[in-house]
Amino acid sequence: MHGKINMNRKGILYIISAPSGAGKTSICRAILSLFPVLRQSISYTTREMRHGEKEGRDYHFVSHKAFDKMIADSAFAEWAKVHGNCYGTARAILEQASEEGTDILLDIDYQGAEQLRDSGVNGVFIFILPPDMTELRKRLESRNTDDEKIIARRMNNAAGEISKAKNFDYLVVNDILDQAVEKVRAIMIAEASRTERIIKTLPEEFGLK
Amino acid sequence: MHGKINMNRKGILYIISAPSGAGKTSICRAILSLFPVLRQSISYTTREMRHGEKEGRDYHFVSHKAFDKMIADSAFAEWAKVHGNCYGTARAILEQASEEGTDILLDIDYQGAEQLRDSGVNGVFIFILPPDMTELRKRLESRNTDDEKIIARRMNNAAGEISKAKNFDYLVVNDILDQAVEKVRAIMIAEASRTERIIKTLPEEFGLK
Repeated sequence: MHGKINMNRKGILYIISAPSGAGKTSICRAILSLFPVLRQSISYTTREMRHGEKEGRDYHFVSHKAFDKMIADSAFAEWAKVHGNCYGTARAILEQASEEGTDILLDIDYQGAEQLRDSGVNGVFIFILPPDMTELRKRLESRNTDDEKIIARRMNNAAGEISKAKNFDYLVVNDILDQAVEKVRAIMIAEASRTERIIKTLPEEFGLK
Repeated sequence: MHGKINMNRKGILYIISAPSGAGKTSICRAILSLFPVLRQSISYTTREMRHGEKEGRDYHFVSHKAFDKMIADSAFAEWAKVHGNCYGTARAILEQASEEGTDILLDIDYQGAEQLRDSGVNGVFIFILPPDMTELRKRLESRNTDDEKIIARRMNNAAGEISKAKNFDYLVVNDILDQAVEKVRAIMIAEASRTERIIKTLPEEFGLK
């Protein structure tokens, strides 16, 4: 951060999770534009490509057979079945980034984040919350893409996930998008200054290592 | 933070410490102007008032006798003797601020911060570092207020404090002042979103408490 590239710096893994409708995708998009060197980890998924999505940018779209093969090969750091589709993060991408000193943003669902947490991954776990449940329902309804049955299921999943969100390091309420982005940005800057991370990058003469 | 005053919010205590010459005073001044509701805890001291200082703004200037009486009454959350003078933080100020939900900035020396840490105070401990020891010496010399013997003593104290700084939560290198201020600011915003702090302020319907 002070002019020199320091080879001792390990990449930081930021995990951002949220119930559907809390605004995770918008926040992640804004954060990626604020940190040009931050890399997004692209998940693998078995779900169908939606209009406007692109292979390798939004997801790696794979067949159920290919996904199952990756599970069998222990190629995933986490994977989960959400609303009937599979999503997973390749272990190799995370390990390589950490070694290279590249910070990674991982935009994943609650189940995936829990798996990473349980596996003891050294990451910063951020959970995005709606201001309240009424507002969450309003946001889900305004999408106009899901019928009432799907919305009811999403609301039910959201309630379950939110009630268990205390395992995350940070909770960020997304009431006003810009403020939520500013908070996530601050968390990322702050975490890079945490003693256990920065200590390896400081001058030898400090006698801190 | 999202429009409503929440009575469940406790004030956060931010402790900023640094060796002489690292730039703590400039950083604290900038931070206080960025957070208008942040209150600075005014320390008690037995040292003489310097030119430009003001009673009750920079310090509460008291006699050795009055200071000793406060020690005897356990009125200090921390106190220390630095370069022959006593400095202390009144316990009452910290407790009242926490209950009122007021965030407090505490600009104290290494010994005082260590005492607070050991006493189990719930605070955010930030240590400001110079980029390296050569730059620290340059800054101490450029003050033109201290003779070589005092500078040598400060350099020696600085080396001792820096080598033990790993007990702090965050280490911020003050190379370029604006960048150091931005990091401290980010730490403060991030800490307010830490799960254990924010959880009490969230809606009951989240079932998080």
